Parts: sequence; C-alpha cells; structure tokens
Amino acid sequence: MHTSLLDCLLEYEVSGPAHFLFNIEAAFHEGQEVVEERLTITPSMKVRHFCNERSGNRFIRLDAPKGILSVNYHARVQLHSAPVPLHLDESPVTALPDEVLHDLMPSRYCESDSMRRIALQLFGHLPQGMGRVRAVESWIHESIEYQPGFTQSTTTAQDVFVQRVGVCRDFAHLGITLCRALNIPARLVVGYVHFAEPPQDFHAVFEAWLDGRWVLFDATRSAPIDRLVRIGTGRDAKDVAFATIFGDVKMLRKDITVEEGDMPPADDSEAAQPLAAGTAGL
Amino acid sequence: MHTSLLDCLLEYEVSGPAHFLFNIEAAFHEGQEVVEERLTITPSMKVRHFCNERSGNRFIRLDAPKGILSVNYHARVQLHSAPVPLHLDESPVTALPDEVLHDLMPSRYCESDSMRRIALQLFGHLPQGMGRVRAVESWIHESIEYQPGFTQSTTTAQDVFVQRVGVCRDFAHLGITLCRALNIPARLVVGYVHFAEPPQDFHAVFEAWLDGRWVLFDATRSAPIDRLVRIGTGRDAKDVAFATIFGDVKMLRKDITVEEGDMPPADDSEAAQPLAAGTAGL
Amino acid sequence: MHTSLLDCLLEYEVSGPAHFLFNIEAAFHEGQEVVEERLTITPSMKVRHFCNERSGNRFIRLDAPKGILSVNYHARVQLHSAPVPLHLDESPVTALPDEVLHDLMPSRYCESDSMRRIALQLFGHLPQGMGRVRAVESWIHESIEYQPGFTQSTTTAQDVFVQRVGVCRDFAHLGITLCRALNIPARLVVGYVHFAEPPQDFHAVFEAWLDGRWVLFDATRSAPIDRLVRIGTGRDAKDVAFATIFGDVKMLRKDITVEEGDMPPADDSEAAQPLAAGTAGL
Amino acid sequence: MHTSLLDCLLEYEVSGPAHFLFNIEAAFHEGQEVVEERLTITPSMKVRHFCNERSGNRFIRLDAPKGILSVNYHARVQLHSAPVPLHLDESPVTALPDEVLHDLMPSRYCESDSMRRIALQLFGHLPQGMGRVRAVESWIHESIEYQPGFTQSTTTAQDVFVQRVGVCRDFAHLGITLCRALNIPARLVVGYVHFAEPPQDFHAVFEAWLDGRWVLFDATRSAPIDRLVRIGTGRDAKDVAFATIFGDVKMLRKDITVEEGDMPPADDSEAAQPLAAGTAGL
Repeated sequence: MHTSLLDCLLEYEVSGPAHFLFNIEAAFHEGQEVVEERLTITPSMKVRHFCNERSGNRFIRLDAPKGILSVNYHARVQLHSAPVPLHLDESPVTALPDEVLHDLMPSRYCESDSMRRIALQLFGHLPQGMGRVRAVESWIHESIEYQPGFTQSTTTAQDVFVQRVGVCRDFAHLGITLCRALNIPARLVVGYVHFAEPPQDFHAVFEAWLDGRWVLFDATRSAPIDRLVRIGTGRDAKDVAFATIFGDVKMLRKDITVEEGDMPPADDSEAAQPLAAGTAGL
Repeated sequence: MHTSLLDCLLEYEVSGPAHFLFNIEAAFHEGQEVVEERLTITPSMKVRHFCNERSGNRFIRLDAPKGILSVNYHARVQLHSAPVPLHLDESPVTALPDEVLHDLMPSRYCESDSMRRIALQLFGHLPQGMGRVRAVESWIHESIEYQPGFTQSTTTAQDVFVQRVGVCRDFAHLGITLCRALNIPARLVVGYVHFAEPPQDFHAVFEAWLDGRWVLFDATRSAPIDRLVRIGTGRDAKDVAFATIFGDVKMLRKDITVEEGDMPPADDSEAAQPLAAGTAGL
Repeated sequence: MHTSLLDCLLEYEVSGPAHFLFNIEAAFHEGQEVVEERLTITPSMKVRHFCNERSGNRFIRLDAPKGILSVNYHARVQLHSAPVPLHLDESPVTALPDEVLHDLMPSRYCESDSMRRIALQLFGHLPQGMGRVRAVESWIHESIEYQPGFTQSTTTAQDVFVQRVGVCRDFAHLGITLCRALNIPARLVVGYVHFAEPPQDFHAVFEAWLDGRWVLFDATRSAPIDRLVRIGTGRDAKDVAFATIFGDVKMLRKDITVEEGDMPPADDSEAAQPLAAGTAGL
Repeated sequence: MHTSLLDCLLEYEVSGPAHFLFNIEAAFHEGQEVVEERLTITPSMKVRHFCNERSGNRFIRLDAPKGILSVNYHARVQLHSAPVPLHLDESPVTALPDEVLHDLMPSRYCESDSMRRIALQLFGHLPQGMGRVRAVESWIHESIEYQPGFTQSTTTAQDVFVQRVGVCRDFAHLGITLCRALNIPARLVVGYVHFAEPPQDFHAVFEAWLDGRWVLFDATRSAPIDRLVRIGTGRDAKDVAFATIFGDVKMLRKDITVEEGDMPPADDSEAAQPLAAGTAGL
C-alpha cells in the first residue's frame, strides 16, 4: 500500500464570464482510495460536481466571473495497485465485452484506421499477448524523442509517428493507436505521479485490454506507473482534459506537487469547499 | 403517424473466421416503434445482441465461418415524430446537461478544435438559436458538392471543408464540426429513409442540441428527415458504422429498400431468427 | 546498347475548349537517343513544342476543340546507359553544385522537413554512400504494399509512410523524401519501360545524387531501370505529369506499349505531324 | 525614385561544422538597383556567391566552424517601381509563357490541387482580371487573423484556410494557392520593407501573373509594397528561406532595420568582405 499527497493549483485570468469544466480530482477507481481531499475555489462560488459512472472520472463545473480564478485541489490517496502478472493473453475480438469494443475505434488523436498496415508490419509477427504491448511501449520509447514545445494541441498519433517527437500525451496516443490497429482495445489514462526530474505535471499514459483486464503502460518511462493516482480515463486526451474552458481566459499558473510515502493528515481548518469524497457526495 | 417497411440485405464473402459487429436494426428511440421485425442470418449461427443504453443503438455480433454470409433485416416501424418548433434557442454551455457536454468535443472525423475561428467567421454574427444551425445546414448544402466516389473512409470534416465535395456522411460531419465549434452540441444519426432518387442506401444526418432537445438536420436535403428510421446515434461515423468487420472479408451485396405508407403485416413463416422486438429480447 | 520501341495512345473526350500540356516524349538526355519518332494529333491542329533546358523534358501544348482528341506518340529510342558503379560516395552538402541544392528541399508530395528524424532513425546509422540509398530503396520495397486504387492524386510521401500502401509514384516520392531528409539530393524520373506483368503504363522511379552524378533507384523493382526511356525529370510528380489539362475533359483511353530489342525502322508513311527529333525541331 | 537603407544582422551559435545557405541580399531585379552594399562575415571565412539566373535570387554559401557566426548585410538600394495599372486582364492559360506554366502547379506549402473547388466558389463568379486577385487579397485580409506564434514551419495554405490564423508567409501562401487554383500563375516574394509597427523583419508577399507581367499583392496590408526591396522570388517559402542550415546550429539574433529616404553614402572603411555588386561579382 502506497500513499500520495497531491496538490494542484491552477490560476486563471478571466476576461469575461466563462464556463469551466475541470477534471483534476482523483477518480473513483478500484485501485485507489481518496483518504481525504479539499477543493478550494477562490473567489467562492457555486460549483457543480458530477461523475461519469463508467469511467469514474469526476468533473467540476463552474461559472467564473471576470477576475482571477484560483482552483486548488489537495488530496491524500491510498493506492492498492495489484501486481500485474508478467504475462497476459490478448483477448480475441469475439471475446471482448460489448462495452470494450468501442476502445478499438479510432478517435480524434488516434487514427488507428490509417495505421493498420504499419502496426501489423511492426508488431504483427510477434506472439500475441502482453509481450506485444510491451514491444509497442518499447518501440515508442526508442523511436520517439521526448521534447516539450514541439507538438501542439492538434497533434495526432499519425503526426507523432511521422515526426518522431512529442510529450507524454503524444507517446500515449501513439501507443493507443498501435494497439487498436492490432485489435487490442486501448485508452488514455491521466493522473498524478511523482517525476524524479522536475517540473511536476499531470502525466498521461495508456492502458490496454489484456485477458479481461486493463493494464497500464508508459512509453515515456519517466515515472513509476504503479504509483499513478488516476484522474481520468478516456478514448484520448479530448475526454480527459484537466480543464475545458468556454470563454476568454488566460492561464496564469499551474503548480503541481506529488509527495509520496505516509503523510500525517493535513489540517482541514481552511477548507472552503465541502468534501466530495465518495460518490455519495455527488 | 407514419409507417416504414425496411429491408436490408448484406452479403459477404468470408475468407477465414471473421467477427462481425452489425448496427442495422431500428434503434430503441422514443420517436419510433418497431411493430415487427425479422433478422435472418444465413448460414444459421449463434448471434449475440446488445444495446447501448444511452443511445439506444442495437448491435449484433457474430462469428462467421469461411463461406458466404448473408444478413437480412426486415422491419416495420411506426414513426411518431413530433413536429419541430420553428424556433428554438441555443443552450448556453453552463446549461448543458453533463452527459451532453461530450458532444461538444472533437472526434475522429470532426476537428472542431481546428475550426473554431472559421465557424465564428461564418456564423458568429448570426443570432443564436435554431436559425443559426439552419444557416450551417444551408451553407453546407450550397458549398459542398454531393459526389460519390471522391471521399474515402478516412476523410474528415476538415478535408471536406477544403475540398468542397463529399457524400451524406461528409455533409453530416461538417455540420457536426461547425456546430461544436460554435459550442452547440452535435452528433451523427444514421438511419433508413426513402430517397426519391435511387439507389436506396443508409442515410447519415446530424443532430444539434437546442433548448433542451435534439433536433435533426440534413445538409444534403435529399430525403424527408421526419421520416428517418433511426438506426444509430453517435459522435461520428466511427460510432455508428453499419458493419465493423474483423477478418478477411469482401462485401458482395448491399440491397436496401424503404417503403412508406401503411403496409399489411409481412408473412413471418420463413423467419429463421428469433425476434428481438423490444429490450426484453436482448 | 539497347533499343526500345514505344507507343503511347491517349484519347480524351473534350466537352469545351481545353488547353493541354503533354509530357510524353522521350526526353533530351545524354543516356538516350531518339532514333525516330512520330506524333499524331487527331483532329489535326496547331501544336507548340517546348523543352526545359535544364531537365531536357519536352512538352507539347495545344488547344483542343470540343470533341474527341487523340494523341499518339510513337518512337524508337536507343539507350546508352553506362553501368552504375557498385559503390558511390554521398556528396557532403558543401560539395553539392549550386543547382543541385534545390533537390534537397521539400516539395508538394515530399515533406522531407517533417521526416528528418525518422530518416535518421532508419538510415542514420548506416555508412554514407550508395549503400544507404539502396537501403532506402529496399526498405520501401519491403515496407510498402504495392496496390493500385488506394492512393489518390493528393497522396503525399507522409501519407504513404503512415498507410504503407501505394503505386510506383508513391514509392518514388517516399524514396525522394527519405533521401532529402538525409541530405541526399533526390528527384523524380518518369519514363517508359517494359513491365514483365501487364498492363503496360508509365513508370515512376527516383534518382539520387551520389558522388557527382545522378543514379536511378526503383523501390517497386517491377522493371529493369537500366532500360527506362526517360520522359521527365522533376522535383516530384507535379513537375512531370504526362498530361496537365485545363478544361472539362474526360480520359477515354491510355494504351502504352513498350517493345524491346532491335526493331526494323517503322513505316513513316502515315506520319501526320512533323518530327521533333532533336532540339533543332523545337 | 525611392531609396532604402537596409541592415540585416544574423548571429548563430554553431555547435559543430555547419553549412549555411543564405538568401538575404537584394536580388538582381529590374525594379531595383543596389547602389552600395557590404557583407561582413565574422569570423572571416571563405564565402561562395551564386545567383539563380531566372529569379535573380542571390545566395551565399559558407562552411562555418564551431563558435559564433555573425552575418551582417548592409545595403543601399534604389527602387524604380513603375506604377501598377488599375486594371490588368488575366492571361488565358494558352497565352501563358512556357516558363510561367510551372507557377500554376501546387508546391510544398500551396496545395492548389485540393483547393480548386473552394477557389471557384469564392472567386469564380467574379469578372476575370486584376480585380479578382484584389478580391483574393481582400478576402484573406478579412478572413485570416494575423497572429505570430500560432503556425509552424510546416504549416501549409490548407492549414491556414482551415485555422484562419497565421503570419505574412501564411497569408502569402494562401494567396498563391487560391490564384493557382483559379489558373492564375502566382509565386512568393520576400524582401525588406519598413513596417510602421515594430519589430522590423523580413516580409513575405505574393505576386500574380496578369496580362503578361508580375504584380505584387500583400494580404497583410502591413507595409507599402511599392517600397519592398526584393530578396527572393520562388514557388513558395521553401525556395526563398533567408537561411537554410545543415548542422547543429542555434539562432541567437536577427536584427533588421529598414530606413527610407535619401541617405548619404555609408562609410565603407570597415567593410570586411568584397562587394558583390552586380552580376559581374558572381
């Protein structure tokens, strides 16, 4: 069992009435338990919480007035990540649960339809199973240069495959795309994890469906994914943006810290927002 | 009240074991009622049915052996389409139901993120409301040339916007994309409808969220959409393909007929498959 | 020495006044000599000939009236292809002649700027020289599936690299792009060659600059390139289209035959157009 | 008659041996005369000059050693720009000079083949002639937002058309593309001009072929194009990059000043490089 202490501070300059959709809270997910959490919105305002039942993603919606908006999420999360077996089989398509089938389909950032031949070329000859997804993960790690500032918010897996450069979400999108093209369901996971090298930030990895369960993979190999606190799960980055903003807004600040180990409970006396711990709170 | 008699015959040459996912049955949807239906699969084989609870889309999964596969869906459907008001307001983003928010996001074929400026240029000055979506629909009708055989299965809304040519699904994808870029939730609908000009085929249109309800639009103007029997509803064509095939398969035949008016009940004596009329059958 | 007997018949239905630019005649090129040729345009009309001094490409321009246009080019060409050494060095960029520098730049179909990293990944570790270009040629041969009907007139090298399918010009564009990305000047060559497998057609290959000379490469390996009768040389297919047409025109027929070996002189009695044999004729 | 005093200072950090191709000198062009010029390369090194005969573009090639490379070009140029008539006809394709034909073809940044229909939609109904190109220029000015930092070095006209944002070269590429799609030859021109608003920089505009001559257009309307000192003319930005660099190099500085009016001759005593004034010097 492992404990993570998270702190996420987002600050925006809002030039006119704006609507925000945040996805920054630790998800409702079997592998993790939110021991305590605190959401502080400044200035104080009405906030709506909702949760996607299937994914466990938790969302916050709010209408911010002109001025500075500050959102601070603080949580202590216990992780119960079960060890991943060294080998797992792929599931034949016919054996996939109905609701997993849609994780085989291409999405905004993951053009698995265009990349079917290349996926077979690179990985079609390998024995089916977890080793094949590990091969995808290794191939990306060795083939794509990690370099911030090159790709854009519209960069897709196909672009990354051609240009060979990107950041964590680009790595994850390419992994998803190659898996789907091999008929292995795959999806994006974003979360908090402690990076050995600063700066701390959200992390994006991918998850593949093997032998009846989802297994995490991280082609960047920049952090220990068994210690990832899951925020969101989705088809690709469009489903799990940490902030989706409608209105004229400029980000001023994004400070994230992730501390690991068993921390004493935080002092809650300054909590401005009611806790949303557990589905009951929604 | 209006009745449609549908017949859809699909025939495939299957070169090796293949898995099929079909989405050809009339959806479970408030505006329509399946009075009778018959699904005949030849050769006879085990078929799994499932339904997406939210969309009402009905799917058939089967493992076809080597040889010829024939799928025949026959149904009589009553439509209770309520008249659409002449004017409906747009819903401000803050008023959108949580589950409708994701119909604002870009998807595989609908790059609404890249087309935000152009959408505002073309339609940003218009009064908000249904008239604005009508303007999108008219603009597409006048700007895009309907021409089969030009676009491909990977053609996106952006391609259609540049190249100005496409078929019904391209028209619908562009409509969806422009709406989403204007912060109007939109999605794809496919169905059966009688075309004045042959050949008969599946039809694709789009649906926009206005004043708390979904409203259909058809930028091709090739058929009466109040008489559309809905098969599927989704983010874009990837969610509602009439057939998704895993394996080495060649389509031999796609024959669709849609007859309108009150028909006498069909003779069911040759029905080879149990009826799946109503959710109970799933 | 080798002789080829070429016949190229193009037929068009012209729906209104149209301007044509043809590039179908054997080029003025040191490796080949046009022994005899005959150009027959039906109906008879005024034709302008011109030649690009640098490339030796020969062009025919004409204004066709409404009706059927038939263009028949017939030629006997002797090839003096010098044997290509088994090894040639690459030229360092600083040693490239000024006029060859532009064959390093990206062009419409050859996005060498986007593919710099991937080219280095695949071929950067190989010793410089002709062997590296042979490696590019082999890699394309093994990685791209030859399949007519999949790519379009707007398909670029990047598309081919992702989708792994194409025809001869796609193979050549990818070869050009990878070479340029490696700082090896490269360009497109189209010509006539006898294919062992019908149907006969124009062929497209690429040429790389090695040790002060241009060397031909053919990633399709579908024909003996030392027997290629050169029609055109250019940056990519846009420079050497066999026909560029302005107006409402439909191609009815494209019949090409290439016979090899020493043929007796053809009977010229029916020649309707003056010969354009040698630069003097222009 | 108008005089411009130009100063261009480029500074690079060179991490290993690198080859540079510069295109920063005032071109040999009928509308302008280089009265005096001075090229100072630090450290002192061997420099090769060459000129493209057709375009009049002048290039400098050099091999820079590890260290800091500084290139300073200083010139006084007299402009004799003839007034442009208020109306000029388009030339029918059949009347285009052979060498102008290739300015109708698509290029790396200008996909005029994909944009034929949209060009006709927007401008096909207008009377042919200079007014139509003015309409293209105005349309771009009104439709594309000028915003540095959004587009990249691989952004094409098609991207700009969809995303509606860019800088001067993007504006010019879109102008070229729309003209070519209308069968009006067009090409890119880069040069020096004094911007009313700082910072000073190179400028990119486009040129269309009308009634037997090239006419300049500037869709940014940010500077007086009759006062543009021409550096380069080409199919698109790939032909006229101010610096093409082979090697590991980082730009440190780009300072450009353009002063207008009749200046006294500059003091040449510190000139480190021989003048290359006039073709004789090449």
